[in-house]
Amino acid sequence: MIVVMQKGCAEQDVNNVVAHIEKRPGLKAHLSRGEERTVVGVIGQTFPELKDELELLEGVSEVVPISKPYKLASREVQVDDTRLQVGSAVIGGNQVVVMAGPCSVENEKQVLETALAVKAAGAQVLRGGAFKPRSSPYSFRGLGVQGLRFLAKAREETGLPVITEVMTAEDVELVATYADILQIGARNVQNFILLDAVGKLRKPVVLKRGFATPYEEWLLASEYILAGGNRQVILCERGIRTFETYTRNTLDLASIPVIRRLSHLPIMADPSHGTGKWHLVAPLAVAAVAAGAHGLLIEVHPNPDQALSDGAQSLTFDNFRKLMDNVRAVAQALGRTAGPPAESIRPRG
Amino acid sequence: MIVVMQKGCAEQDVNNVVAHIEKRPGLKAHLSRGEERTVVGVIGQTFPELKDELELLEGVSEVVPISKPYKLASREVQVDDTRLQVGSAVIGGNQVVVMAGPCSVENEKQVLETALAVKAAGAQVLRGGAFKPRSSPYSFRGLGVQGLRFLAKAREETGLPVITEVMTAEDVELVATYADILQIGARNVQNFILLDAVGKLRKPVVLKRGFATPYEEWLLASEYILAGGNRQVILCERGIRTFETYTRNTLDLASIPVIRRLSHLPIMADPSHGTGKWHLVAPLAVAAVAAGAHGLLIEVHPNPDQALSDGAQSLTFDNFRKLMDNVRAVAQALGRTAGPPAESIRPRG
Amino acid sequence: MIVVMQKGCAEQDVNNVVAHIEKRPGLKAHLSRGEERTVVGVIGQTFPELKDELELLEGVSEVVPISKPYKLASREVQVDDTRLQVGSAVIGGNQVVVMAGPCSVENEKQVLETALAVKAAGAQVLRGGAFKPRSSPYSFRGLGVQGLRFLAKAREETGLPVITEVMTAEDVELVATYADILQIGARNVQNFILLDAVGKLRKPVVLKRGFATPYEEWLLASEYILAGGNRQVILCERGIRTFETYTRNTLDLASIPVIRRLSHLPIMADPSHGTGKWHLVAPLAVAAVAAGAHGLLIEVHPNPDQALSDGAQSLTFDNFRKLMDNVRAVAQALGRTAGPPAESIRPRG
Amino acid sequence: MIVVMQKGCAEQDVNNVVAHIEKRPGLKAHLSRGEERTVVGVIGQTFPELKDELELLEGVSEVVPISKPYKLASREVQVDDTRLQVGSAVIGGNQVVVMAGPCSVENEKQVLETALAVKAAGAQVLRGGAFKPRSSPYSFRGLGVQGLRFLAKAREETGLPVITEVMTAEDVELVATYADILQIGARNVQNFILLDAVGKLRKPVVLKRGFATPYEEWLLASEYILAGGNRQVILCERGIRTFETYTRNTLDLASIPVIRRLSHLPIMADPSHGTGKWHLVAPLAVAAVAAGAHGLLIEVHPNPDQALSDGAQSLTFDNFRKLMDNVRAVAQALGRTAGPPAESIRPRG
Repeated sequence: MIVVMQKGCAEQDVNNVVAHIEKRPGLKAHLSRGEERTVVGVIGQTFPELKDELELLEGVSEVVPISKPYKLASREVQVDDTRLQVGSAVIGGNQVVVMAGPCSVENEKQVLETALAVKAAGAQVLRGGAFKPRSSPYSFRGLGVQGLRFLAKAREETGLPVITEVMTAEDVELVATYADILQIGARNVQNFILLDAVGKLRKPVVLKRGFATPYEEWLLASEYILAGGNRQVILCERGIRTFETYTRNTLDLASIPVIRRLSHLPIMADPSHGTGKWHLVAPLAVAAVAAGAHGLLIEVHPNPDQALSDGAQSLTFDNFRKLMDNVRAVAQALGRTAGPPAESIRPRG
Repeated sequence: MIVVMQKGCAEQDVNNVVAHIEKRPGLKAHLSRGEERTVVGVIGQTFPELKDELELLEGVSEVVPISKPYKLASREVQVDDTRLQVGSAVIGGNQVVVMAGPCSVENEKQVLETALAVKAAGAQVLRGGAFKPRSSPYSFRGLGVQGLRFLAKAREETGLPVITEVMTAEDVELVATYADILQIGARNVQNFILLDAVGKLRKPVVLKRGFATPYEEWLLASEYILAGGNRQVILCERGIRTFETYTRNTLDLASIPVIRRLSHLPIMADPSHGTGKWHLVAPLAVAAVAAGAHGLLIEVHPNPDQALSDGAQSLTFDNFRKLMDNVRAVAQALGRTAGPPAESIRPRG
Repeated sequence: MIVVMQKGCAEQDVNNVVAHIEKRPGLKAHLSRGEERTVVGVIGQTFPELKDELELLEGVSEVVPISKPYKLASREVQVDDTRLQVGSAVIGGNQVVVMAGPCSVENEKQVLETALAVKAAGAQVLRGGAFKPRSSPYSFRGLGVQGLRFLAKAREETGLPVITEVMTAEDVELVATYADILQIGARNVQNFILLDAVGKLRKPVVLKRGFATPYEEWLLASEYILAGGNRQVILCERGIRTFETYTRNTLDLASIPVIRRLSHLPIMADPSHGTGKWHLVAPLAVAAVAAGAHGLLIEVHPNPDQALSDGAQSLTFDNFRKLMDNVRAVAQALGRTAGPPAESIRPRG
Repeated sequence: MIVVMQKGCAEQDVNNVVAHIEKRPGLKAHLSRGEERTVVGVIGQTFPELKDELELLEGVSEVVPISKPYKLASREVQVDDTRLQVGSAVIGGNQVVVMAGPCSVENEKQVLETALAVKAAGAQVLRGGAFKPRSSPYSFRGLGVQGLRFLAKAREETGLPVITEVMTAEDVELVATYADILQIGARNVQNFILLDAVGKLRKPVVLKRGFATPYEEWLLASEYILAGGNRQVILCERGIRTFETYTRNTLDLASIPVIRRLSHLPIMADPSHGTGKWHLVAPLAVAAVAAGAHGLLIEVHPNPDQALSDGAQSLTFDNFRKLMDNVRAVAQALGRTAGPPAESIRPRG
């Protein structure tokens, strides 16, 4: 952080700034006196509010953050990509890992049928919602524990590890009993109590970007989990809210190379929520892979028009297979792979 | 909800749409056959996902919501304004109720001193944060229960009721023991578990708008609380996130007359978070009153440049007094009042 | 502008940065070598692209703009408010100047009738569109020169000066023949050819903010006009585009105190376009005055439901009178005035 | 367009609505009386303002647009993709057409050198700016006519057709003399006078999306050109403005499949402006191709760190070659081609 003093400010103002910095443990001030202005550098791990505090002091013209406010999530602290193994999937490496399944778990048959279909097409993780955040209290809010049990059963039958959402700190332990990967939804990206809670786990957590979360705040949210000791964090771009309303959200695919540059954490994309329309899912899924995504989260349903939630953005089994064909083709064209190693794919017929 | 069928769609498509609607309990379909198109009306309380489901069906051209997806929050269900009495304040009526105090409770002296100052200037509720949501895990996160106790003590000494934030369902009972009004912060506007929890209280709840929450989703969030049986909900505009970064957020004052039109719930404004800069707080506070706000939430601190959080947007006691003078003047100019009834104001000197 | 070098960068890198800066006429580099990092200050009038250029150089960690990229528009260059006299109105001072009239000029009678009504209610300038920007080529695009003539005629009859929009550099001379104030619309805020053209005039120009124009770019747009030699620039907030679609735009009233702080130019608000709904115009107009606006731009029509454009946001004569009553009351409450000096108001009856 | 009447509205209100519709030439009203509500359908080509007008009328509850406000741009009017031949490029078909070159034309040598390099790498059109829109009047604004001459000379030497920006209606004829494709920049997307002017040409026009232009308004802007008789319109996604400031804009790649669905016009992407950072250009370029883009617009410069504009987002020759390798690989993986037919590629060495 650099504090730029006003031209001709009083000596006392500079001293105040130095004192304000150095009263914080671990921070040191460093003065550079130019011809026109004095500049005070802050050395040590700063935090976002320090900027606001310093800007209030007499004689300060501007305060400029230089080092990143996140640390454990930063590429500067860990140069090599984080890689996480879950079942046959290695997330964060050369493989494009696809997690697919229904938005909501509705019944045992629906989950199992979908699990078999997505596995056959090359998915490596089964997704399914048991606790559902819904903007209206009158919408279907999920089967709860019963849904978790259906997911676990589908895992037994197919060998696919399971990812499912957790909505509150109180449920973390319960959900972790059933799930291989926990998901924090967009609306909870800054539910700090929940982030603290999953930070105590030693299981992978997918942290979705919020509707209005800049990259820096997203990485700071991941820092909560990392700081709690859980280093198995995966980020997932799922679109942000903009003036464009034709799509449900605006999928920001630049986030993929940006996060890969700023952080060592794996980064996925969710084109189902990112677009909200099934016919846009495949082109955006393939685009996300081309942009460098480590994985995809895709909604698939046996009968999208009967789905209890998000039918409009769910793919049929057939459309999902076509999507996987394109994903594989593009991954290979760019020197990567998609789906499990060849021997583990079950024949389609 | 109105379902517009494609020109020349099959009779079977129309029948499917009707069947899909009528399999939901409480919903009925109504057919209008035009020369060119058939239109199917949905009668009964719909929910947002129904639109998505119907749009997926064969032969459907467009689905148009007509009735509002929220009910209890709606002006159609309750014509008269909701009014809530808390201490000397009646929120939702002709009075402009000002809630003021420090962003974070730091120590007993700071809270008490601020409580006395804001009361003297005309505030009717004391605000103060004990549990603080912070974008970085390295920032000060509040005193917790100790902070609640300091607030309660300041209430005893000044008679001012207390508003403070609750961040998780687990803490609702605890916070409700100390607070007169609970606040749900912007980041938790769609933390549905927390909304359910405060819905079980019978105490006023201030629900802040999220960074990217449209009016309709905000009212749907309030519907969670109302549907739980707690009818004491107050909305609070605190700015949304836009491309403009000079201000911390973009305070959307149109929300005030809009919410007053759509809903019977009281609506306040928080120009401190809404702007993030102390020198913008007063003009926007007065503007909010002019736009029809039922109240204001203002950050005040004995020494903003020493504050442990949000110093940059906190007012000194002196600036707060000036703000109150303008608030009173504008309220009176528009036939309203601000601050407690005359007899209850303690002399300033 | 401050260039922060990477830790341990090569001496040659620093020299390159210095050379890159000093090859620009008028710019000088100033070195500050800290313990950890070297910082290079840029002295002189910089421009936005310099940041991008410097960030590309080897060894550069970050480039931070300090001084504003605009100069003539800046409060630092001119401390006192710019005041412009147009008819009985002094724009930029203590008076709230209201400019009112129809969105589009439709015929002679409509303009004259409206001019008389808004004058009687206290407006000091007549607005009316002859050249209309419309998002669809199939919408009514204005009467053109004929419309200008009707406006000029209404000025003769009422004494009200006239403001009207100019859409292209080719029309500037023509429009300036008829208009007392030229308006540049939101869609043309960065039509630099047009800005250059009105920069050659010596007549007041109202420059509206664009749908997605940050304060800094808006002031830079005004800088085009000022740099052309025309110092009679008035800014006008008219709402920005956000995810909220209930209102046509999101009126950002913080822009008013912000612009007053950064610049000496007068700043108005247009709540008609800012909200798009007539029932929101009055509360936002009054709020804009409370926030410190120097003036208002209001759409008024004899029969809004017959208007050829923007009927939904136009006020009837009666509603405009009520708005003016509130504007006057709030202006007075804050020690300002609204409307012409008392003797010049024509009796209402 | 469908007009939903309020429950129990007066018969006279319905008649007024019908009359209001039918007084417009070409529009007809169609009544559907339900048990609860009456619905009035509007038959014929509507325009955006009609919605506002009808919403103002007594007894109207809601007005819902159904048919698209654009016509000539619509897939409904023209089912087959528009294909345009320019030099060796067919834009709008199976080929991915890359247009590359410097942001600004600086001198003859720079243009020619770049033209040769991008041609060798597989580009089919040379881009270069002679008239430059710049947010600051103090930035380099282009060489003007001299720049056009350098571009024409580079075309002579390389055979590459040329695309360049036109900023004002007055220059259209001049620019069309030199350019094979005219470009309308983001800031001019709703400069309707300019759109009218290029509508009179019979040359391809690339119309970039504005900072805050929804798909529908963008297609309506293209409708201006089409309605003028010029059917050679190409759309180009170049990012929109959002709260995220790490990237210069947010490249909205969903626009590509959306535009392909709504319209028959070709759609390209500009990842250089879309991201503003050279290291993000390649991943987003490849992603755009994967999403279905018909072409790419890429900034390339012999020495980006010496560029007079947009150096930060320009690729070196070497990086451009690598980008083209990936573009070709991904295009082929998806059954498309990139670059000119094999025989026309000049050997790289």
